Amino acid sequence: MSPAGRDALTDAGLLSPVRAGTPAEEAVSDLAWLQAMLDAEAALARAQARLGTLPEAAAETITGCARADRLDLRALALAARETANPVVGLVQALTRVVAAEDPAAAEYVHRGSTSQDVLDTGAMLVAARTLRLVRADLARTAGALGRLAAEHRDTAMPGRTLALQAVPTTFGLKAAGWRQLVLDAEERLARVADGGLPVSLGGAAGTLAGYLEYARIDGGAGQQSEGYAERLAEAFAAETGLARPALPWHALRTPVADLASALGFAAGALGKIAVDVQNLSRTEVGEVAEPAAAGRGASSAMPHKRNPVLSTLLRSAALQVPVLAAGLVQCLVSEDERSGGAWHAEWQLLRECLRLVGGAAHTAAELAEGLTARPERMRANLLLTGSQVVSERIAAVLAPELGKAAAKQLLTRASAAAEEGGLPLHEVLAAEPALQARWGAGELAELCDPGAYTGGAGVLVDRALERSVPTLEF
Amino acid sequence: MSPAGRDALTDAGLLSPVRAGTPAEEAVSDLAWLQAMLDAEAALARAQARLGTLPEAAAETITGCARADRLDLRALALAARETANPVVGLVQALTRVVAAEDPAAAEYVHRGSTSQDVLDTGAMLVAARTLRLVRADLARTAGALGRLAAEHRDTAMPGRTLALQAVPTTFGLKAAGWRQLVLDAEERLARVADGGLPVSLGGAAGTLAGYLEYARIDGGAGQQSEGYAERLAEAFAAETGLARPALPWHALRTPVADLASALGFAAGALGKIAVDVQNLSRTEVGEVAEPAAAGRGASSAMPHKRNPVLSTLLRSAALQVPVLAAGLVQCLVSEDERSGGAWHAEWQLLRECLRLVGGAAHTAAELAEGLTARPERMRANLLLTGSQVVSERIAAVLAPELGKAAAKQLLTRASAAAEEGGLPLHEVLAAEPALQARWGAGELAELCDPGAYTGGAGVLVDRALERSVPTLEF
Amino acid sequence: MSPAGRDALTDAGLLSPVRAGTPAEEAVSDLAWLQAMLDAEAALARAQARLGTLPEAAAETITGCARADRLDLRALALAARETANPVVGLVQALTRVVAAEDPAAAEYVHRGSTSQDVLDTGAMLVAARTLRLVRADLARTAGALGRLAAEHRDTAMPGRTLALQAVPTTFGLKAAGWRQLVLDAEERLARVADGGLPVSLGGAAGTLAGYLEYARIDGGAGQQSEGYAERLAEAFAAETGLARPALPWHALRTPVADLASALGFAAGALGKIAVDVQNLSRTEVGEVAEPAAAGRGASSAMPHKRNPVLSTLLRSAALQVPVLAAGLVQCLVSEDERSGGAWHAEWQLLRECLRLVGGAAHTAAELAEGLTARPERMRANLLLTGSQVVSERIAAVLAPELGKAAAKQLLTRASAAAEEGGLPLHEVLAAEPALQARWGAGELAELCDPGAYTGGAGVLVDRALERSVPTLEF
Amino acid sequence: MSPAGRDALTDAGLLSPVRAGTPAEEAVSDLAWLQAMLDAEAALARAQARLGTLPEAAAETITGCARADRLDLRALALAARETANPVVGLVQALTRVVAAEDPAAAEYVHRGSTSQDVLDTGAMLVAARTLRLVRADLARTAGALGRLAAEHRDTAMPGRTLALQAVPTTFGLKAAGWRQLVLDAEERLARVADGGLPVSLGGAAGTLAGYLEYARIDGGAGQQSEGYAERLAEAFAAETGLARPALPWHALRTPVADLASALGFAAGALGKIAVDVQNLSRTEVGEVAEPAAAGRGASSAMPHKRNPVLSTLLRSAALQVPVLAAGLVQCLVSEDERSGGAWHAEWQLLRECLRLVGGAAHTAAELAEGLTARPERMRANLLLTGSQVVSERIAAVLAPELGKAAAKQLLTRASAAAEEGGLPLHEVLAAEPALQARWGAGELAELCDPGAYTGGAGVLVDRALERSVPTLEF
Repeated sequence: MSPAGRDALTDAGLLSPVRAGTPAEEAVSDLAWLQAMLDAEAALARAQARLGTLPEAAAETITGCARADRLDLRALALAARETANPVVGLVQALTRVVAAEDPAAAEYVHRGSTSQDVLDTGAMLVAARTLRLVRADLARTAGALGRLAAEHRDTAMPGRTLALQAVPTTFGLKAAGWRQLVLDAEERLARVADGGLPVSLGGAAGTLAGYLEYARIDGGAGQQSEGYAERLAEAFAAETGLARPALPWHALRTPVADLASALGFAAGALGKIAVDVQNLSRTEVGEVAEPAAAGRGASSAMPHKRNPVLSTLLRSAALQVPVLAAGLVQCLVSEDERSGGAWHAEWQLLRECLRLVGGAAHTAAELAEGLTARPERMRANLLLTGSQVVSERIAAVLAPELGKAAAKQLLTRASAAAEEGGLPLHEVLAAEPALQARWGAGELAELCDPGAYTGGAGVLVDRALERSVPTLEF
Repeated sequence: MSPAGRDALTDAGLLSPVRAGTPAEEAVSDLAWLQAMLDAEAALARAQARLGTLPEAAAETITGCARADRLDLRALALAARETANPVVGLVQALTRVVAAEDPAAAEYVHRGSTSQDVLDTGAMLVAARTLRLVRADLARTAGALGRLAAEHRDTAMPGRTLALQAVPTTFGLKAAGWRQLVLDAEERLARVADGGLPVSLGGAAGTLAGYLEYARIDGGAGQQSEGYAERLAEAFAAETGLARPALPWHALRTPVADLASALGFAAGALGKIAVDVQNLSRTEVGEVAEPAAAGRGASSAMPHKRNPVLSTLLRSAALQVPVLAAGLVQCLVSEDERSGGAWHAEWQLLRECLRLVGGAAHTAAELAEGLTARPERMRANLLLTGSQVVSERIAAVLAPELGKAAAKQLLTRASAAAEEGGLPLHEVLAAEPALQARWGAGELAELCDPGAYTGGAGVLVDRALERSVPTLEF
Repeated sequence: MSPAGRDALTDAGLLSPVRAGTPAEEAVSDLAWLQAMLDAEAALARAQARLGTLPEAAAETITGCARADRLDLRALALAARETANPVVGLVQALTRVVAAEDPAAAEYVHRGSTSQDVLDTGAMLVAARTLRLVRADLARTAGALGRLAAEHRDTAMPGRTLALQAVPTTFGLKAAGWRQLVLDAEERLARVADGGLPVSLGGAAGTLAGYLEYARIDGGAGQQSEGYAERLAEAFAAETGLARPALPWHALRTPVADLASALGFAAGALGKIAVDVQNLSRTEVGEVAEPAAAGRGASSAMPHKRNPVLSTLLRSAALQVPVLAAGLVQCLVSEDERSGGAWHAEWQLLRECLRLVGGAAHTAAELAEGLTARPERMRANLLLTGSQVVSERIAAVLAPELGKAAAKQLLTRASAAAEEGGLPLHEVLAAEPALQARWGAGELAELCDPGAYTGGAGVLVDRALERSVPTLEF
Repeated sequence: MSPAGRDALTDAGLLSPVRAGTPAEEAVSDLAWLQAMLDAEAALARAQARLGTLPEAAAETITGCARADRLDLRALALAARETANPVVGLVQALTRVVAAEDPAAAEYVHRGSTSQDVLDTGAMLVAARTLRLVRADLARTAGALGRLAAEHRDTAMPGRTLALQAVPTTFGLKAAGWRQLVLDAEERLARVADGGLPVSLGGAAGTLAGYLEYARIDGGAGQQSEGYAERLAEAFAAETGLARPALPWHALRTPVADLASALGFAAGALGKIAVDVQNLSRTEVGEVAEPAAAGRGASSAMPHKRNPVLSTLLRSAALQVPVLAAGLVQCLVSEDERSGGAWHAEWQLLRECLRLVGGAAHTAAELAEGLTARPERMRANLLLTGSQVVSERIAAVLAPELGKAAAKQLLTRASAAAEEGGLPLHEVLAAEPALQARWGAGELAELCDPGAYTGGAGVLVDRALERSVPTLEF
């Protein structure tokens, strides 16, 4: 290929800054995918050697040769157009590399196997490796959000519903809610990862017939027993570190659909944090600020702006992953023993979901660890509507004394008077004869204080923080 | 409303036969949803009464009045346009009904509550009730598929990949695979249902402030303790039969996203069965037949046709649910303490997902229980290509003797000769001098017999059937 | 059915307030759909009569009997489970009704036809009727937005990007942009509607063989000519008011995919207006207010709130329709001469898209016609950041004099000083020796005035308003 | 970056064979996108020079420097994480390159502009360039399908509905239908492309204020006129070859949504061809064969297989693009003057849609040009059911003589007898006394001949072929 041609193959992440340069990007690259498929080929050979149906030496040679840098990635990609998948070419290329070292070993490459076993096992290796990165970043994010929640357990701020201030809440409760979503996301990914992601081992049509046949040929009568299929799956799983599936899953796509669901969830969960941060960052609101770094958030036109770029990146992922994940779930509808299309549609969708969620989790950790809360702006905003934000409370308190309807009328009248006169509501109320008998000015001031009406927010934060952030050791 | 107007509100399922008349249809109707919201209101009153902050008698009256047939469904739906949700009107209407019986009790309707608590709790009740139906039908389906798998454990048929015959498999393995997907679907729904679906209890902005305030007013100082929030959630959960959530989830939509994922999975899993049944039903294939019933599968134009209608209905659901579910997952991105739109978008999407999956599960049970396999057609199709379907095996067997390349050449030549001469491949091979020394005619015939090359299919079926179908008791 | 059962079939719109009670709801009901299919049957009979292959009297009888109120809607829906579509049962039921009036005419019901011709033609009639409603409401909306744009051509407000104030814009330009999207939506729907929506006429497998055979039998030799197929399509189109398709489209789903795209666009376009209105309605922003009506926007918990309910309804539609529309576009992948599933998946998705967009358009008209702009709040918000909102301009103006870098430094320093001192930026700048030589205090004040920096907004509004709102006559 | 790191950035298309090595791949690469954005910067400078507000020499220098190979692609991608888009870094880098040649010219880079103007204009350039490739491949495809349709105008084959043989059709009609979908796709893309794709020109918040300010500063009083905004848009459009938009469209995403719809349609249309080819390629059907090429369709396990790989690739695209396109349509819901996330989500989705459709169109041309029809298999399959495939016709013909019910009974009886006896249906019918009086044996044989019952298929093909394939000259 010409240098220009090669440059044209560079995916630097120009159009996907949410993942550019994050660890997930490299973990799901074509090169990583190729290596994972080679890892699958090598593990298969070793598994067969374990069971005595493939020479140890051949397995070693194949393992030594199964390195992505010894193959021509682009040539494999182009060859995949002839067979609709890259494994046919990969097997030929790997066989050539092995043959150059030991012609006898070359006979044992991909022994009894089929393209889908290799590609699917490779995909699960890529997914498992990427999920570790994602989960670690989600744990970091949850840790940081937990600290914010604890620190701001009692920091009152306006609760907002349908875009309007409703009643007070606390920033601690908000951060605790974000943290819960992040932990929910981690839990769902953990369930899939630890579940766990299975090797693919089915042979041409899911019966393992090719493996069994070669076992008979290569390993003698002892390998004819039906148990060989199970032992091979066991050994293959052990060699890859993946799980053993209940059945070959060429056309039973539970593992991919489960990944899709968990990744879609994770993207959406982070997207929730993003929209909240953006709304709280609005110039007129100003209750939080994204972490500042040199050049971060700069605008090409406006020197004063410091854009909430991390939450923008998170939202860009949250808008993409759920629809991509839906595409993956639809691939459950895979006809026959292997679909002519549904399987092939999965690869790029899965890679993109992993990459976007990996980038988003990394970005979220950076956001959470550097997010600044501004209690003074929260307080100021709470006072914007002159105690209307606690009108729910005042109505509740007055009702038993005055009756529901009379209380509401009085409150409406007092609110209007306060607004016109530019007075605090509690002063207007204190001047109401109907109330003077029952409530003192101090009590009314307390009643009208938004900061004193945060309900069970503190307790809720405490309870939420009891859920621990997983300590991940991979 | 005029009778014509009322008729225009009838959703008889005309455009959605997959669910018309199935139990799920009624379980998710407007009426069922309304009743579930009323159940939530009643349960809330009883929970408050349990804690001593609401008179027992009021709770009883409210419970007795909370019947959908006492409200005007259409009026509530129309009123919902004024408030963007039907609960505001529902509370007014319920209050009127209660007031007619006991004005004092009317004060306690929706005490301290907010629309979202009622609608979300109602939604979870509807979901919980519908999931029971879905899971029972999935269990029925899995039971029937298990019987098919056992019966046809060793019934050979062509395995097909990318639309072409590949190598043999068995119908037992195919049915066991379908069963596994159905059990996977049941398991995912069970995880959500048993998890379980939570009540919604947050008050106006998720702090429970309203509930606490009324508890203080109604219940005295003893209820001011912070623990009230937790005790109320506990009591509300107990009264509804739902779970207690970790945090109020007005804007933390894990329960809905989890439902969406599990329902999307279930639809896709059933869709896989459907495309397989259709492909095996093709006139030219004819390996299975859908259950016949009077009129079932009739065509308006073609008297001879017996259409695979049940699998058609399943596919119609499988094409719809995953995109609807994506819409629900996207609603995770709910801004603030309550979204102005993302919450509201969930309702119809969730209902439709429940309804389609409910209908599909019911249809799948009918399909699985009546599906006929035709082993003789499977056998005939296996022989269509004159042993090409076992060429993988023959190549594997010949290679060690002849060398890989020579074996392939001989096989290609022999296949062509067999096809031209209309002879069985094993006869052509038996006439090859290079093979006569090593293999007898009987051995070659056995080698070329598709029915003898089903690999580990039998063992795989046995293992798959060890997974038990859940016994559901609700 | 029991009354309770019948009530369970009521779809009052409880979960979809965006369309409850709007004209589109009735236009796409089961009853409307049934009538449209009957209209198709009647039109087909009349078309055949026009061509002399069906007795005029029979066509008249069929037309007279083709009334939805003479059939049992629920029975048809339930029967559709046996055949996967409701037309088989509809034909039987209609035939019975006709036979009761004139047994001879009953022979001519559905003569030579197939289910898909009737259902697809019915669907196009429903779509055509609903699009008229949608387009009229979009035209109303555009009209109202045009008036807002003209009125506020020069009303300055903050332009916001990535959630922050960027530089000023005008409310007129914003309204003109909304109007443009609405006109774009109307244009796309018009293109589909006027294109136009075609009858479906293919017979059992798209060759019209049944129609031709009956024409030969019923009409004699004169009808054997190949031109009959074309003449019948022409006549059927004329009788229905729909267009004549180039080819039978049982498995060529362009008309449905086109509808889906246009409806998805319309929902998204209205969703853009909705999020803008919500953001401008935020308590801290307050630049617009939704139309107030009795009870509109009330909260069940908070007496002071007046929620932006219309934009909430619009957003709920915008979040649903694009994914539903994707489901429809996917149905382009319809196998064979008629898909076993892809066709059946369309019906409910199409109905829901039409209904949601119909409701949204109606809601948008109400929103646009009653939306209040608050120029004083816009002005106040523009001043919030102390001229930072025009920093782009100041930097541009200073640069030629001071050099780009020095200008930027001076501006950064001055902004900080202004913020600390609580002074207007122009006063700080006026005190800068470097600037005094070149700019007077008045000039600097003008330069720092956000209201004077709205660029070409006015001209852009003028140009946008040149695009006329279509006058729709149906 | 380390070589390994650089390799990790290679996107060779390993996971997306549908587009690996096709022209679209290079046309949408990061490098191509970067170049397009630089083309936008250069065109903007030239446009400003045209209007006299920027020195000609500076425009020339900028144009000369605006070459992607002079910038560090990866560095720009990484920098984009700091600003959420790659243009801020691009402007800095380009400015440095220009400054090295002519410091004075560097002042004029990105004069008055904003990131979105450059990125959106670049995106439209990329889209315009890619659409030319796509449309040319669609035209090639349509040409080849037209030849197939003409050649097989009268080649009878089974029409299939709901997976079963229904009545005969012709392969010509099938190919004509495919061709129509391809022409529909081309037409929809042409509408968008010729429409046409607009430049983006709005400045920081869509008012062009920055451009106007610099025009005033750089160009003197003459440029203060309001007309400057329009003249600049005109000149920018002329310099890029794109269209002039009615309004700045930073938050009015009609162009992107229109692209999405047309691309989703195209993918779906090609997917329809793919599933038909796959179904007709099935081993048991065998009516068509994909073009054979060296190695094409080879399996890693099964020497005999020749997989329908091109249709598999097409389906893989058809399963992905509609959901990606839905993601793009959803981005219509872009808040404010520029969305913090919806804009950013578009880039990768749009690139992927363009790339997949570009690859699919290229693949479709190869498929259509090499597809082989097998009339003898079509004929054989038509005879499989012993004239059942024409039962519609026989019933129609017998009914007028025998009455509908009696005709149906006789036909059912005769069909059963034919099947049991292994006799042709027409012979059984000829032995029926009730028919002998009316029809001769020859007539009955003709009546039962599937090849004689293709209705208007021929005429429909003729009419469809009247629609011409566009001659594209770019």
